[in-house]
Amino acid sequence: MLTLFFAPDTCALATHAVLEEVGAAYALEHVDFAKNAQRGPEYLKINPKGRVPALVTPQGVLTETPAMLVFVAQLFPKAGLAPLDDPFAFAQVQSFNSYLCSTLHVAHAHRMRGHRWVDADDKAAIAAMQRKVPQSVGDCWAMVESHLIKGPWAMGDAFTICDPYLFTLAQWIEADGVDPARFPRVAEHRARMAERPAMKRALAAERD
Amino acid sequence: MLTLFFAPDTCALATHAVLEEVGAAYALEHVDFAKNAQRGPEYLKINPKGRVPALVTPQGVLTETPAMLVFVAQLFPKAGLAPLDDPFAFAQVQSFNSYLCSTLHVAHAHRMRGHRWVDADDKAAIAAMQRKVPQSVGDCWAMVESHLIKGPWAMGDAFTICDPYLFTLAQWIEADGVDPARFPRVAEHRARMAERPAMKRALAAERD
Repeated sequence: MLTLFFAPDTCALATHAVLEEVGAAYALEHVDFAKNAQRGPEYLKINPKGRVPALVTPQGVLTETPAMLVFVAQLFPKAGLAPLDDPFAFAQVQSFNSYLCSTLHVAHAHRMRGHRWVDADDKAAIAAMQRKVPQSVGDCWAMVESHLIKGPWAMGDAFTICDPYLFTLAQWIEADGVDPARFPRVAEHRARMAERPAMKRALAAERD
Repeated sequence: MLTLFFAPDTCALATHAVLEEVGAAYALEHVDFAKNAQRGPEYLKINPKGRVPALVTPQGVLTETPAMLVFVAQLFPKAGLAPLDDPFAFAQVQSFNSYLCSTLHVAHAHRMRGHRWVDADDKAAIAAMQRKVPQSVGDCWAMVESHLIKGPWAMGDAFTICDPYLFTLAQWIEADGVDPARFPRVAEHRARMAERPAMKRALAAERD
């Protein structure tokens, strides 16, 4: 049995949707950001980083989305969500997810979480970061559009763990001040992902 | 045959040292940051992200350190540098590397690469980011010290792809204004890594 600690509208959706894709037995636990529960003593015992997602497994707790996505793919190999036995193809999956995690998501985080990288009281610096987000995040989406997404799925013909992750971050495009019309391949991917029953179930569960 | 595009004192050292650990046949190509070669048209054909490292393989180009590290481990399974067939243990390796990539390295990058996240002409915001680095990077090392590094190696008794990566980022501790004496387990790991013949060869080659 697995338990996914999540908050709505976070990157936890990627792992959540992949758990749905593979048909895993799992429980959902909502970490209430409105109460700052991610920094509360109970949750810090589960994930000392104070962030979501975290996946509690029989062997221990896992964090970091790219690691969790591969873990689920590896636990459910029949679902075929990652080319685990083809080193180059697997590295492409990993590279894609690593870019989302360390470049695209990080650029996005400067809009709401600027206090991670400047003094929280420095309003001018916080605002300076927010002003840059449309450009920095837009540049990331331009990279995804022109070089990373193969189409129709992220890795080409095969649906993989990259796809729910890409869709998850694409949910933030408008709020980041980026015009989605600039990226037709991303928009098409997003529309296709929104129709996946697994993603629909995950989104519905997070809104409950 | 593999070709690693690198620059000295970057995270490319992690993959470089792992190539040495496994005894891979590879060529090194120096991307000259002093000439801004990482943004030049020739290198952008190899890696449109304009960053190092990049690994040219017979099947295509790979980027993103966590992906490249697993790729090399998977190409050379006898070296035993990642628990590829144990999903939980492998996820721990991946989680460790993902944290280094998306949190620790990112915090560090705010010292020299603040222009990624604010207007390059906004000197006050650039300076505000630089002032925060000792705290933000120090907090990351505190997390590594207290929760992530198992000792004697990152994952415990087994030397893995996490270790050269950890060592690579630890090379920046002093320049980031963080006192290494706060983190004795990291310091011990760093001293042990510095004695690895593979790391010595990689460092020597990058200084040539």
